[in-house]
Amino acid sequence: MKKIKVNLDKKVSNSYEICVGYDIMDRIGLIIAKNHPAFRYIIVTDSNVSALHGEGLLEKLKGMGLKADMIEFPAGEASKNISTALGIVEKMLKIGADRKSTLLALGGGVVGDITGLIASLYMRSLPYIQIPTTLMAQVDSSIGGKTAVDLPEGKNLLGTFHQPRGVFVDLKFLETLSEAEFNNGLMEVIKYGIIEDAGFFHFLEEHMDRIRKRQSDALERIVENSCRIKKGIVEIDEKDEGLRRVLNFGHTIGHAVEAASEYRMSHGEAVALGMVAAVRISERLHDLPAEDRVRIERLIKSAGLSGHIPKTITLEKILSRLKMDKKKDGSTIHFVLLRKIGMPFINGGVPEMVLHDVMEELRR
Amino acid sequence: MKKIKVNLDKKVSNSYEICVGYDIMDRIGLIIAKNHPAFRYIIVTDSNVSALHGEGLLEKLKGMGLKADMIEFPAGEASKNISTALGIVEKMLKIGADRKSTLLALGGGVVGDITGLIASLYMRSLPYIQIPTTLMAQVDSSIGGKTAVDLPEGKNLLGTFHQPRGVFVDLKFLETLSEAEFNNGLMEVIKYGIIEDAGFFHFLEEHMDRIRKRQSDALERIVENSCRIKKGIVEIDEKDEGLRRVLNFGHTIGHAVEAASEYRMSHGEAVALGMVAAVRISERLHDLPAEDRVRIERLIKSAGLSGHIPKTITLEKILSRLKMDKKKDGSTIHFVLLRKIGMPFINGGVPEMVLHDVMEELRR
Repeated sequence: MKKIKVNLDKKVSNSYEICVGYDIMDRIGLIIAKNHPAFRYIIVTDSNVSALHGEGLLEKLKGMGLKADMIEFPAGEASKNISTALGIVEKMLKIGADRKSTLLALGGGVVGDITGLIASLYMRSLPYIQIPTTLMAQVDSSIGGKTAVDLPEGKNLLGTFHQPRGVFVDLKFLETLSEAEFNNGLMEVIKYGIIEDAGFFHFLEEHMDRIRKRQSDALERIVENSCRIKKGIVEIDEKDEGLRRVLNFGHTIGHAVEAASEYRMSHGEAVALGMVAAVRISERLHDLPAEDRVRIERLIKSAGLSGHIPKTITLEKILSRLKMDKKKDGSTIHFVLLRKIGMPFINGGVPEMVLHDVMEELRR
Repeated sequence: MKKIKVNLDKKVSNSYEICVGYDIMDRIGLIIAKNHPAFRYIIVTDSNVSALHGEGLLEKLKGMGLKADMIEFPAGEASKNISTALGIVEKMLKIGADRKSTLLALGGGVVGDITGLIASLYMRSLPYIQIPTTLMAQVDSSIGGKTAVDLPEGKNLLGTFHQPRGVFVDLKFLETLSEAEFNNGLMEVIKYGIIEDAGFFHFLEEHMDRIRKRQSDALERIVENSCRIKKGIVEIDEKDEGLRRVLNFGHTIGHAVEAASEYRMSHGEAVALGMVAAVRISERLHDLPAEDRVRIERLIKSAGLSGHIPKTITLEKILSRLKMDKKKDGSTIHFVLLRKIGMPFINGGVPEMVLHDVMEELRR
């Protein structure tokens, strides 16, 4: 037997910039033409964002003399599947997209995830740029290169790590968000405070009122700070092999309940109750101070979310969903728990009885 | 506007070994258990290979006390699509595959490409190992991490670069190949001689008879040499951004004719005629010596392939397929042409008249 070594140890450069501000869309044409040259740009967006912001972006690109097209698909998590992705790919082939084309993901998390996935797969990968329009996408899903579609068996079961070439976070987009959509993102912001930054958590406690009124300086502060926390974690653990798992705080149970509700529940509500559940488990198993639990539950309530599991969803359904979670390792499910605010850790296994009890408490 | 840099410049290690020999499958269980530990192994194979070699491999893995399963799909290029991939994914979910599972791609190019693609996508990527059973897969498709499925619009339009953790090339597999299947691989071997190694080309001229009789020392030499050439090119250009394009010698026109024939033509026949076409274009446009053209055409014939385009396929159909080729850059199609044996180069544009004339010559 002969051995031939294929030497593929090398330096790769996947670095990029996140631009945060209130005035980005005004000069987006110029910035893209200058910093992200391509033969052709294709905006991928959904039916909601298309009318609100898509046409405007398309005009701006064309106004710079760039070749630009727009592809839209029906808004909503239900679109986050392979058949939507294939529909977009078909349109790209018709337009004549090739490896010198760049995709622009204009929209929320679904648009970003699906566009990123297409960018990794189309002709074995294209560059793409994130232009997140929801708070959730701005502070979380647009950063870090996780792409995915859902399968009937669970969320994000097919995906890649494919970093964008840039992220443009225009805070003006936040003005037109519904309260439910705003809250989806707010839960991720609160999560960053809980897992990473007790000072930021305190800021959120003090200023929740101004944040919910969407005052510009408050939004600037929370978005910028959240982006910094997220990017710091992604830098250390790009491929979700260790530290990055703490970002799943509140999401393991949250995703399971969301799926068990057949996605009738908002992501924000799901993460809120997932965080409350994680905090209560942490208090029972790991001596999280009661005071920290109370502060977290109070902050989530002050953000307008209940943290409850609807009575209509059975525990059995949630538990069977939990067992499909892709973060499990062999047969153990990893939960992100908390020692105190700002200090999370990964727990290899929570006794089913504790899980049961806590979730029963949260059902209203 | 604030800028936050996400620093993702880093060293990555995608290196791996290709093992070539006549005795690998006898100890494959031991090698995998020792060098590629996983919680679970899933053999992905097709309906032809499953009975011939799949059951045996499954037994060997289980005999080592490893957790192992096998998933098969219908043999043939027609299976190389998203719906086959989704069927395999569904079975993996049922089996309980997670991120600690390793896939074993046992089969030809279709099995390797589709398994590699699933390995890049399933829960945002799993490790996989290539165990190529055809000559084509052994000398070409199993090395270099290109994964793909076809779309109705063309071959390999969706795919990734995802390097395997190892490639096990057992030459015994070659004994059971049909002549057509053997010739598919032989065309890639000849291609390596043409584009990279005039000495190897000469060896093929001298020993074609013994190669076609599949004598073990001749096979050992051509497979090992081909693997070395392929790995050398992949090392320099992992992501197909430059040098690696020379591997497409004969494939641009070959793929177009293959598609125009609705895949009724074998890949070997398609590459053979693609190489003959490329050689004739090279002679007309770039003074490739007539002697080199004659030697190449003679070697292809001595390998049992005609190098002709079936009369039933119209030039219009081939040309429209050519324009869909994903290696085009903007609106120009890049052809790999030849200055002399061992010296290829990329040509930015071949006049359509020359293309027409050469293809008309080859229609019989």
